[in-house]
Amino acid sequence: METIQYNLPPNRIPLAWYNIAADLPKPMAPPLHPGTLKPLGPDDLAPLFPMSLIMQEVSTEREIEIPGEVRQLYAQWRPSPLFRARRLEKALDTPAHIYYKYEGVSPAGSHKLNTALPQAYYNKKEGTKHLSTETGAGQWGSALALACAFFGLDCKVYMVKVSYNQKPYRRALMEAFGATCIASPSDTTDVGRAILAANPETNGSLGMAISEAVEVAAKDPNTKYALGSVLNHVLLHQTVIGLEAIEQMALADDDPDVVIACAGGGSNFAGLGMPYIGRKLKGACPSLTKGKFTYDFGDTSHLTPLLKMHTLGSTFVPPGIHAGGLRYHGMGPLVSHVLDLGLAEATTVQQLDAFAAGIQFARSEGIIPAPEANHAVAAAIAEALQAKQEGKQKTILFNLSGHGHFDMQSYIAYQAGKLENYEYPAEEIAMALAGLPSVG
Amino acid sequence: METIQYNLPPNRIPLAWYNIAADLPKPMAPPLHPGTLKPLGPDDLAPLFPMSLIMQEVSTEREIEIPGEVRQLYAQWRPSPLFRARRLEKALDTPAHIYYKYEGVSPAGSHKLNTALPQAYYNKKEGTKHLSTETGAGQWGSALALACAFFGLDCKVYMVKVSYNQKPYRRALMEAFGATCIASPSDTTDVGRAILAANPETNGSLGMAISEAVEVAAKDPNTKYALGSVLNHVLLHQTVIGLEAIEQMALADDDPDVVIACAGGGSNFAGLGMPYIGRKLKGACPSLTKGKFTYDFGDTSHLTPLLKMHTLGSTFVPPGIHAGGLRYHGMGPLVSHVLDLGLAEATTVQQLDAFAAGIQFARSEGIIPAPEANHAVAAAIAEALQAKQEGKQKTILFNLSGHGHFDMQSYIAYQAGKLENYEYPAEEIAMALAGLPSVG
Repeated sequence: METIQYNLPPNRIPLAWYNIAADLPKPMAPPLHPGTLKPLGPDDLAPLFPMSLIMQEVSTEREIEIPGEVRQLYAQWRPSPLFRARRLEKALDTPAHIYYKYEGVSPAGSHKLNTALPQAYYNKKEGTKHLSTETGAGQWGSALALACAFFGLDCKVYMVKVSYNQKPYRRALMEAFGATCIASPSDTTDVGRAILAANPETNGSLGMAISEAVEVAAKDPNTKYALGSVLNHVLLHQTVIGLEAIEQMALADDDPDVVIACAGGGSNFAGLGMPYIGRKLKGACPSLTKGKFTYDFGDTSHLTPLLKMHTLGSTFVPPGIHAGGLRYHGMGPLVSHVLDLGLAEATTVQQLDAFAAGIQFARSEGIIPAPEANHAVAAAIAEALQAKQEGKQKTILFNLSGHGHFDMQSYIAYQAGKLENYEYPAEEIAMALAGLPSVG
Repeated sequence: METIQYNLPPNRIPLAWYNIAADLPKPMAPPLHPGTLKPLGPDDLAPLFPMSLIMQEVSTEREIEIPGEVRQLYAQWRPSPLFRARRLEKALDTPAHIYYKYEGVSPAGSHKLNTALPQAYYNKKEGTKHLSTETGAGQWGSALALACAFFGLDCKVYMVKVSYNQKPYRRALMEAFGATCIASPSDTTDVGRAILAANPETNGSLGMAISEAVEVAAKDPNTKYALGSVLNHVLLHQTVIGLEAIEQMALADDDPDVVIACAGGGSNFAGLGMPYIGRKLKGACPSLTKGKFTYDFGDTSHLTPLLKMHTLGSTFVPPGIHAGGLRYHGMGPLVSHVLDLGLAEATTVQQLDAFAAGIQFARSEGIIPAPEANHAVAAAIAEALQAKQEGKQKTILFNLSGHGHFDMQSYIAYQAGKLENYEYPAEEIAMALAGLPSVG
């Protein structure tokens, strides 16, 4: 039998997350306070996050221990499988070896549970009763809803309105896990009401939903806020992906020449990529290719700290493409910094190419990828076809960050010829960037 | 760390399926020809099935070798995990040990791929170009669609109209895998047109969809028919589940006092149960509890052979309950025979109890079960609560046959209080049974 899965036993779940901050040749720019524009201290973040997560956010320790209770919960699906896509290789008739780390086996359906669990754990430990958050595609909201069910926390999810309407089943999943799900912008917050007053027909955006979720947490001492990407501690928790992949590639007696992941806020990319740092990386996200590396807010209402990151401008509302998890104006500052240092590179994949790749992958490998992950599949297939053209063996590793079982509407639209590619509007982005405070 | 998964490496995928016919104290009643009412010979089935599957259907060999190519494809997700539901045990505060074999990790989402792959394999090998089939809940149609994609066969799926309308995303999944999906009854067949003429508003039923799929195969020499349950060869292929489970329970150093599976046509039940034969078994299906053990047709139009099985009467149209995979008038003759011999027992679980159990399971174990599997979850929880009441340790093993990612509409209906229990109408069933030919 040909080996197609390289699996590790549960005792090989990493004992610690990997913090790349310890190894960077140059430190990251600090986050800034939205009022004073001065660097933030840990106390400034205390209304939003438990102290253990704030300490992780600013840590420069190389290894941060994974709590036993979190490892125990990881054992439900971790170490996640590493597959060799042998049937796809045959379909492409390529000399390349294609491997994918599959995070869709997580009970919430994506890599997001890797960070939802420790976030719920530390909050529970420090006395939090309720967590508020936002979700775009719904993968993050589902993961946090499940983590809250495991730890007995209330969970309120602001879901970007376009996704809320496109994905009733995703909402049903969060509700089955016991969470409350609200279409954003909503009339449950001051910022939501203000946005609706100005633009009642808005599709919403992750930036707006963040503003609402942050407001809820800031106003109630028993409520904290949880974020599914962008911040250092979130990216940190995802490094279990890459740490496992390095061991699994060794089992496969192979080593990637190229490591690929899609990037919205950057946590999926960081998860596979950071442990592979120093090697050539490749992402897929317009904020990395069309944006600017500068200080910007995480939300549209400018309640969050300013982070130095690749951004399209926080007032820019991304179009309603189906890969909702990639529809964010910004990018994790850590990922932005790594790109700025030349340790990784970014590329864009158009929506139609992404879905074509996803269908080809499904028919070869049997798994329907999430629309976000289709971008990574497309980049991997492009690499494999290039290897064929050049007649070169090449080893490709990509992260299949989640399954698309709750995204079938987008496949229906694609198969019916109703999806289009989207050009990011240079002028709108320039305007959104011009409105930023002049720091950094 | 507490162990929650008992996994086997790919080389422990069984080398052979287990055929209980070799070990039965009394042989099964033979299938009858629908025209002559005489026992069928292999040649009578040749228009519908490839000869290798017909030989499996009538085989009394204890072990039937799994082809290498099928084992290679099984290796994508097999051996499937065996979980100990420790968090559910804690939530129930029960002394019972609850284990579940999880078939939802199959790329098609359920145990159905275990038989879809060998059926596609043998058809391909014997020159079949097209496969026709029916699907109720959609799990079987998705599995056959994927198996056909792997083997390069055309696939046409007649989907029971009520499910077709309830589950557009299930249909989209089949189409993503490359299959054609048609709402049944349809105007593409003679029987479909006749049913529609008599009852244009019908919800359809598995029995009607079988009639259509059989007609398509019978009329075209390049088309064969594939069935997802009921027949011996289908049940045979599912025995990989129980064979693996026996090894995994040994790894767990535990042994089930009770083995539970839900049953529609019986393949899921047979998959886990047959290898455990001789022990006490427990199923959940009205045709086992309300029906009669007699000869009946597999379809509504009486095109199929007559099988001796527990049946509600082939003209009885089951109500539109959400566990679509259990909505079939009959039951695998092999399962019926095993029950008749007293080797297993049947119980019924009502729809509301099933969904309540599914929600509790989701919040403890993180997995949203398919509505069919909720029936097994409910039976397992009932056993665990009884153990608690009796203060007895008991080991429970059930089959979680699939995930519910494409069944969220039923969870929405349940959570909104829109589902009801259903009493099977004694009078209608009696009438349907009275109309059967007087054999057996």
